[in-house]
Amino acid sequence: MPRTMKAVVKTAPHLGAEWRDVPVPMPLPDWVLLRVRATSICGTDVHIYGWNQWAQTRIGIERLPQILGHEVAGEVVEAGSQCRCIRVGDYVSAETHIYHPADLQAMLGQRHIGERMKIVGVDHDGCFAEYFAVPESVCWVNDGAIPPELAAVQEPMGNACYALLGEDCDVAGKSVVILGDGPTALFAVGIARAVGLTTIVVIGASSYALGIARRMGADHTLDITDSGVDRVQYVRDLTGGYGADLVLDMVGAASAIQEGLKIIRKGGRYSAFGVSGSATIPIDYNNGIVFRGIQIHGISGRKLFDTWYRVRNLLASARVDIRPIITHLLPLERFTEGFETAMGTPRQCGKVVLFPDAQELAAARQRMSAT
Amino acid sequence: MPRTMKAVVKTAPHLGAEWRDVPVPMPLPDWVLLRVRATSICGTDVHIYGWNQWAQTRIGIERLPQILGHEVAGEVVEAGSQCRCIRVGDYVSAETHIYHPADLQAMLGQRHIGERMKIVGVDHDGCFAEYFAVPESVCWVNDGAIPPELAAVQEPMGNACYALLGEDCDVAGKSVVILGDGPTALFAVGIARAVGLTTIVVIGASSYALGIARRMGADHTLDITDSGVDRVQYVRDLTGGYGADLVLDMVGAASAIQEGLKIIRKGGRYSAFGVSGSATIPIDYNNGIVFRGIQIHGISGRKLFDTWYRVRNLLASARVDIRPIITHLLPLERFTEGFETAMGTPRQCGKVVLFPDAQELAAARQRMSAT
Amino acid sequence: MPRTMKAVVKTAPHLGAEWRDVPVPMPLPDWVLLRVRATSICGTDVHIYGWNQWAQTRIGIERLPQILGHEVAGEVVEAGSQCRCIRVGDYVSAETHIYHPADLQAMLGQRHIGERMKIVGVDHDGCFAEYFAVPESVCWVNDGAIPPELAAVQEPMGNACYALLGEDCDVAGKSVVILGDGPTALFAVGIARAVGLTTIVVIGASSYALGIARRMGADHTLDITDSGVDRVQYVRDLTGGYGADLVLDMVGAASAIQEGLKIIRKGGRYSAFGVSGSATIPIDYNNGIVFRGIQIHGISGRKLFDTWYRVRNLLASARVDIRPIITHLLPLERFTEGFETAMGTPRQCGKVVLFPDAQELAAARQRMSAT
Amino acid sequence: MPRTMKAVVKTAPHLGAEWRDVPVPMPLPDWVLLRVRATSICGTDVHIYGWNQWAQTRIGIERLPQILGHEVAGEVVEAGSQCRCIRVGDYVSAETHIYHPADLQAMLGQRHIGERMKIVGVDHDGCFAEYFAVPESVCWVNDGAIPPELAAVQEPMGNACYALLGEDCDVAGKSVVILGDGPTALFAVGIARAVGLTTIVVIGASSYALGIARRMGADHTLDITDSGVDRVQYVRDLTGGYGADLVLDMVGAASAIQEGLKIIRKGGRYSAFGVSGSATIPIDYNNGIVFRGIQIHGISGRKLFDTWYRVRNLLASARVDIRPIITHLLPLERFTEGFETAMGTPRQCGKVVLFPDAQELAAARQRMSAT
Repeated sequence: MPRTMKAVVKTAPHLGAEWRDVPVPMPLPDWVLLRVRATSICGTDVHIYGWNQWAQTRIGIERLPQILGHEVAGEVVEAGSQCRCIRVGDYVSAETHIYHPADLQAMLGQRHIGERMKIVGVDHDGCFAEYFAVPESVCWVNDGAIPPELAAVQEPMGNACYALLGEDCDVAGKSVVILGDGPTALFAVGIARAVGLTTIVVIGASSYALGIARRMGADHTLDITDSGVDRVQYVRDLTGGYGADLVLDMVGAASAIQEGLKIIRKGGRYSAFGVSGSATIPIDYNNGIVFRGIQIHGISGRKLFDTWYRVRNLLASARVDIRPIITHLLPLERFTEGFETAMGTPRQCGKVVLFPDAQELAAARQRMSAT
Repeated sequence: MPRTMKAVVKTAPHLGAEWRDVPVPMPLPDWVLLRVRATSICGTDVHIYGWNQWAQTRIGIERLPQILGHEVAGEVVEAGSQCRCIRVGDYVSAETHIYHPADLQAMLGQRHIGERMKIVGVDHDGCFAEYFAVPESVCWVNDGAIPPELAAVQEPMGNACYALLGEDCDVAGKSVVILGDGPTALFAVGIARAVGLTTIVVIGASSYALGIARRMGADHTLDITDSGVDRVQYVRDLTGGYGADLVLDMVGAASAIQEGLKIIRKGGRYSAFGVSGSATIPIDYNNGIVFRGIQIHGISGRKLFDTWYRVRNLLASARVDIRPIITHLLPLERFTEGFETAMGTPRQCGKVVLFPDAQELAAARQRMSAT
Repeated sequence: MPRTMKAVVKTAPHLGAEWRDVPVPMPLPDWVLLRVRATSICGTDVHIYGWNQWAQTRIGIERLPQILGHEVAGEVVEAGSQCRCIRVGDYVSAETHIYHPADLQAMLGQRHIGERMKIVGVDHDGCFAEYFAVPESVCWVNDGAIPPELAAVQEPMGNACYALLGEDCDVAGKSVVILGDGPTALFAVGIARAVGLTTIVVIGASSYALGIARRMGADHTLDITDSGVDRVQYVRDLTGGYGADLVLDMVGAASAIQEGLKIIRKGGRYSAFGVSGSATIPIDYNNGIVFRGIQIHGISGRKLFDTWYRVRNLLASARVDIRPIITHLLPLERFTEGFETAMGTPRQCGKVVLFPDAQELAAARQRMSAT
Repeated sequence: MPRTMKAVVKTAPHLGAEWRDVPVPMPLPDWVLLRVRATSICGTDVHIYGWNQWAQTRIGIERLPQILGHEVAGEVVEAGSQCRCIRVGDYVSAETHIYHPADLQAMLGQRHIGERMKIVGVDHDGCFAEYFAVPESVCWVNDGAIPPELAAVQEPMGNACYALLGEDCDVAGKSVVILGDGPTALFAVGIARAVGLTTIVVIGASSYALGIARRMGADHTLDITDSGVDRVQYVRDLTGGYGADLVLDMVGAASAIQEGLKIIRKGGRYSAFGVSGSATIPIDYNNGIVFRGIQIHGISGRKLFDTWYRVRNLLASARVDIRPIITHLLPLERFTEGFETAMGTPRQCGKVVLFPDAQELAAARQRMSAT
């Protein structure tokens, strides 16, 4: 094992990150060390890279320098002495939400939102590096049939899966409107198609991303820059006049949220996944929630390991082919290019996957082009 | 059957109602006619009586004159030719939400929020009268052990039951904070106690009503006029630091809603039953809903006939004794006194029950005093 | 409207049925009369046609003569005076379980198993005829995009849908073993594929039917006549050693049931849809149910109208193409040939659909051959 | 810490156990060592003590000698170096089902039935001793308001809680028939009463135990030795003719199971908790399960830590007072008397609680007599 490694490190409280040599982390007795095979850029990484208001408050200058990243696929190269489940040589991904087993939520089946839960890449060093240490308790052994560039994005696919299925799993034969066209929204389209949603509408802002949405199985896409469309009426027309059974907010903007509560049918379910840029959102409490019997469910993370099981099976069985969403494969060293791609407006990308190792990247490119 | 009857009629677009002679209604072939034995005043009646903004918009001047009232217990004195389930002589109450069977919601088990659903006393003439016509499809045959003054309030008890149980029924051994101390909130206390909530906190504004809450089984009551209490901290102290598993909003004020979303624990369930006086409520979307994994459920009406079944059984088995909430029994003719009681601030009443017939009133008074 | 019509009538307590002229039924005030466009043969019809033990007990000689059949698509040609939802000209199918609205089960959302529920073609005259009368309350307006030969089989597809989804809908990304290869089992395969089951195994006895299962999306099929396979081990090998998340029994034989309880994983769900030929089945209560935490759910009929909504949407959106299962289209007059086909062993058919009208049949044949 | 301790040890493959000096166990790095304050006798202990067929097969002679017992309350006197949640001095009880975190079931929220799950007192040494070692991962920190004689029986109360609530928690205002009058059945009565079951019927064989059932809140008790009662009709008479919403089998005998499937209403839920003495039970599959839409749920153990949370709260809030069930308090040394009491027929006891320490026993006796 080398002593040092290359890593993408947030070093200063402004836009950007540095490509640095840092020590290879030492796993605790119940942690493992991974050799990172693939890692991908999430919106959270973009917030930290850009050092926006949320990052300034949530992370803060005192924790810098810190390694970015949390979506990963890798090989276990070291396992602490107390590890019982994971062994050296295992091919794993990792849940980002490091739960505390004694939290009430963890005890009641909600490990992802325990009071003392910590997030990789936010509260701890992340995985934009050659090596990455993580507790055994959040490792997930991958199916060998899923290559690293897909295994790395199981984490955000889990968000999409949880947002779609919610707590009731009541989706088969139903209609859904997905607000947003970022990578998680695109994963949601693919999953929705695979699990039997029969009317799938995506409302987004990037014609490039909406094209991917259609390839993933969206029945209808709407560009919000097309001002001639009454979107509420449009959805009603597609749903027998009732509105959508489900709405997934994957934007977080006030206008999207307010529109989402009009697009949903009476008695429908609304998943709140998008993060708002405003301190508060004005909500029509009476007509948006109470009188119409709406259920709203805040989605942060994903159920351990319920969504991992489903996502793994959907990928390994090829029920969902997410390759149209994996638009950019880059060496980790070119992370700046990756972030700029992810931050472009209007978005000209799906998911950006980074590879510390050139051979892994070459193999991934070959697999993708063989599609 | 007489041709005319006495009724409380909303006649003009301002505060008040009139005691009038009106024709006894004729039931349609699948409707029944009840002789009203007891009827009670709901917040909705108060809105219409006071002709507030909601009433002006929702009902409108063009529908006047209209008979008020929708909570009822009565005896069937006539049944239309197509009635299959209800017979003359049956002792019944009635669901207020007259569903349309072809609404998608009705077909999927959400009859109370169908698109074409009509509400008694809002969209139709109500039951503050000697006789009352209602579709057979919303009648509920009462248990003979439940006297009319209690049977009449099964409808708002159903609201309380639905707000508490929600869709998941996951309440046994859990904690609840009830925001509000109106009659429905007080019913919720009684039901919460009967169905195994182990920490029951009520936050209200009337020391009179909070006294009833304690008699109904509240473990803790807080008066919001007591400015010295940090209510969020108070609830955390009672719940191991986590916050309440469940919050029922039975107020609808912005301050209550915002506080409710702080009082609830991560992963908790929040029932939105209160009706807001404002067009919109500013909600902390990120911290109030998304990051904390909160579930919000809009409650309008109650599940047909799921909550009726439970409420009937809770009353008939004496698992809940709601008599402390039934604070006022009056002849229907003295409805003005009833409304003034219900509208008083701070509230000096629980539920006000009205009786068209003097003998029914006398019998009810005797039963109540025999407690 | 003609006075008489042709119908397939069970007239005598032995194998067979007669092609008779009978009066066109008169709908009650809340019933409608359909012109039958397509109707299909179900296992129940086969039991009655063959006059087996179940038919002798359940129907009995005293109810004969009675028209067979209950799976239907038709056009409304007459609507009783009290009908509110269905109109002349509507293109409808009908739920077979005519519920009584005052049954407790019907009141609690289980209309299909109410105590007083009656079954079309079992307790009433059926639809193997030119015209068919049915209560408005069980009619379902079809999507015009679904032709009659597919609309008629929505009823058994609803069985398959309910058996698969159960009460919890927890199927996405899970594994299922379907015991049986009759038409309902084949529908279950198609639905399972459409709603995201990622490992679908069918165990059957007809190589013909298993071929259809593979066309419908089964990942693995096993012929029980292939004695060389340890089926329990086979399923474990496909499911990481655990056994299947779900098992659907669509056979009802003791050997299938006992094997099903071994094939299922600890904590799995088992749908009991098959009807047993024996009075009792010996069950390993401890190891089959208790110690392994199994959930068994008896499936009789389908949820009104939850499964209708899902099935309609799955068909209209072309998420499921059931045409491989519709193997035989015949004029109603040739019902004898249809029954013999359905009763053949080993089965050389999927679903047999019958048409009272020659033009409807010709159009259906053209649509099927255009596949 | 002493080197040796007194313990009740199963030493030989026949009836009985020995009071022996054995080494105090050494906890592993993620285990803790408890000083046992109270421990209670379960049916499983009785099976092992009596060395019945199940014990011979499940445990086997090769594992002897082994310490009996698994229901416990104690004080942590040592914590392994890797313990994160539990500390020396904590007052804890322990879940008996030691789950393996990598089992699929454990990953999906069913830790109690994982494939590699081990049971205290069955697969490991138990707690009928002065000290007891157990993994931190199954410890539950007790509420200080619950004394040891009650805290020890939270484990079987959890069985009762899980059997009653099942997966759907749909119990409020419903009816239940509990088959059996052993301690777990009696706990189920107390919980049923506390969580809002409105008709509670217990069918048992011991007039002594049925007397406790009535003290715990049963509305009706039936002695099966009273041959004059048609129990199916009796239950129908109490439930409007429908049968019970819920049935809990806490006996396991063929006759009880068969009767249970008749006593339940169409669409009801049946919890299978009793363990059968026969290899198979003849079940009327068609009428007992399929046609009546019954749900059967095998209950083995209890959900971690869902039921612990509820049971703790029910006890700490005094919503349930289980002291009538705790009929015998004995020094651990007199375990033989305890077992003979527990094995008596007809049963003349509720729960037998044992105390290694004389002062703990004296204090418990004082608390019980202060009732």
